[in-house]
Amino acid sequence: MKIVSRQEIDAILPELDLIPLIEAGFVGYSTGWAVVPPVGELLLDGGDVHIKYGYLRQDDYYVVKIASGFYDNATLGLPTSNGLMLLFEQRTGELAAILLDEGRLTDIRTAVAGAISAKYLAPERVERIGILGTGIQARLQVEYLATVTPCRSVLAWGRSAAKLDVYRADMEEKGFEVETTEDASELLKRCNLVVTCTPATRPLLESRYLRPGTHITAVGSDTPDKQELEAAILGRADVVVADSISQCRIRGEIGQAIMAGSLQEEDVIELGALIYGEGQGRNNQKQITVADLTGVAVQDIQIAKAIYESSKTPTEDM
Amino acid sequence: MKIVSRQEIDAILPELDLIPLIEAGFVGYSTGWAVVPPVGELLLDGGDVHIKYGYLRQDDYYVVKIASGFYDNATLGLPTSNGLMLLFEQRTGELAAILLDEGRLTDIRTAVAGAISAKYLAPERVERIGILGTGIQARLQVEYLATVTPCRSVLAWGRSAAKLDVYRADMEEKGFEVETTEDASELLKRCNLVVTCTPATRPLLESRYLRPGTHITAVGSDTPDKQELEAAILGRADVVVADSISQCRIRGEIGQAIMAGSLQEEDVIELGALIYGEGQGRNNQKQITVADLTGVAVQDIQIAKAIYESSKTPTEDM
Repeated sequence: MKIVSRQEIDAILPELDLIPLIEAGFVGYSTGWAVVPPVGELLLDGGDVHIKYGYLRQDDYYVVKIASGFYDNATLGLPTSNGLMLLFEQRTGELAAILLDEGRLTDIRTAVAGAISAKYLAPERVERIGILGTGIQARLQVEYLATVTPCRSVLAWGRSAAKLDVYRADMEEKGFEVETTEDASELLKRCNLVVTCTPATRPLLESRYLRPGTHITAVGSDTPDKQELEAAILGRADVVVADSISQCRIRGEIGQAIMAGSLQEEDVIELGALIYGEGQGRNNQKQITVADLTGVAVQDIQIAKAIYESSKTPTEDM
Repeated sequence: MKIVSRQEIDAILPELDLIPLIEAGFVGYSTGWAVVPPVGELLLDGGDVHIKYGYLRQDDYYVVKIASGFYDNATLGLPTSNGLMLLFEQRTGELAAILLDEGRLTDIRTAVAGAISAKYLAPERVERIGILGTGIQARLQVEYLATVTPCRSVLAWGRSAAKLDVYRADMEEKGFEVETTEDASELLKRCNLVVTCTPATRPLLESRYLRPGTHITAVGSDTPDKQELEAAILGRADVVVADSISQCRIRGEIGQAIMAGSLQEEDVIELGALIYGEGQGRNNQKQITVADLTGVAVQDIQIAKAIYESSKTPTEDM
């Protein structure tokens, strides 16, 4: 049994080509090749814990991920999200590895799903990337988008000028040109690829500012009560994609839009089906597309396996 | 974060006084002080995996246990059951410890629950302990019963004469007087404390052999399809105790007896209530009592905490 530390994981991550691996996971999920039971949930006074687990049939491992969010941790100087992943042998149940990633792999696999969504749905020429939020996903989404679009121009929205300043400095250091705004409508007016990364419970982006040819990836909302997009945006979209239709039916932007009557479930296609070529993605550069990501255990399975396999062999340049 | 090995756990176990700790867990469970969500389950071709998790309110930790059963492992020279436990800080979600117990703590906490059941329900004078089965629980139940009764006389039933011989030799080495039989009715004819530890799916013990003054602890059946006791046994019992009424309603001997119409749910009392003094246990030496144990996450929580706390301090005799 191998224990892989956060430091080892951080060293392995840049070597991995995660997009095809996570794409294969989504395809497995949408074609019924994945076994992913309902998420386990533990609610505590100061936070909540989610247990995601599952496997791809005829694969080597099954994966259990335990992830937590404790929102007062920031005041203690601790990260608010945390977690680890466990890999077990499908044939014998033996524990193969413990990945002490502290939630890092969840952040990364979420950002990779954003890049995959953009790869299949973003307009050919991305003018400017609009980012709603200034947190970890607001950073990672932009970094992973750089693997699927040459655009390095970013417009970030946040409520706090101070956080926007830090965001701009950090992201400029990574090679992006960053402008900031405290007016969310600017994102829809000036960007044709927008990624939403806040825990908002009321819409921040309004349909009236949405221009033809825009793609939006909605990352922030993963519960029934969170919402970043006005339901009318999904109503106007030519293509609406969910990472998991069964999850998005009751949560995320799609859940909100269905509840509001702006969207019908049968008009939603699943990301894995789109990748597999079963669904119709963007047809032309005028279409509006929305991808709603709530997180699926196949992403965890795929990234956990990749880290474990890499941890077993010396790095390429040794 | 501390990783505690199987070897360390085996060294700590004999030092622990587990009965009061597990009793406190059952009381917490029955008085609503425990948060124990439904068990997560993952079914694979060669085995199944269960994820039990929960916490006691205002306690220091929450616990996640992952346990597996892969029944062909024996042919590979591997244990059929396996598992580990994880402790996290209730206040921050930080991982406090990984207990690599390989399923040992599940076996032990199950045996301790058997001893607790006997402590509250067995007749004053135990003539002979009857054991159905020759596996790990058939051994541990007898060992932990020795902490609550002076009786060292055991009659073991099994289907295989060879396994019975090994069982007798092993348990005699531990100081018990062991007789064996391949006729299960002998257990009810000659023992007044019987523990059933097989994965049978058809009753092995029949009501017609049951004598007044007997206590039976049913350990083997923990699913809706397993059954070791004829339903009429529970119908005849003066006291029927469940470790968890919500679990036993649909699984174990109680589930079978309710389905057969031999027992009503309102006649079942919970083990934690009995310990707490809220339910009526054995009144006299002629009563028949049955305890049905299906396993509750509070047992895992309590034993995991005890191991972790002990692992932090040097052993007493150092």
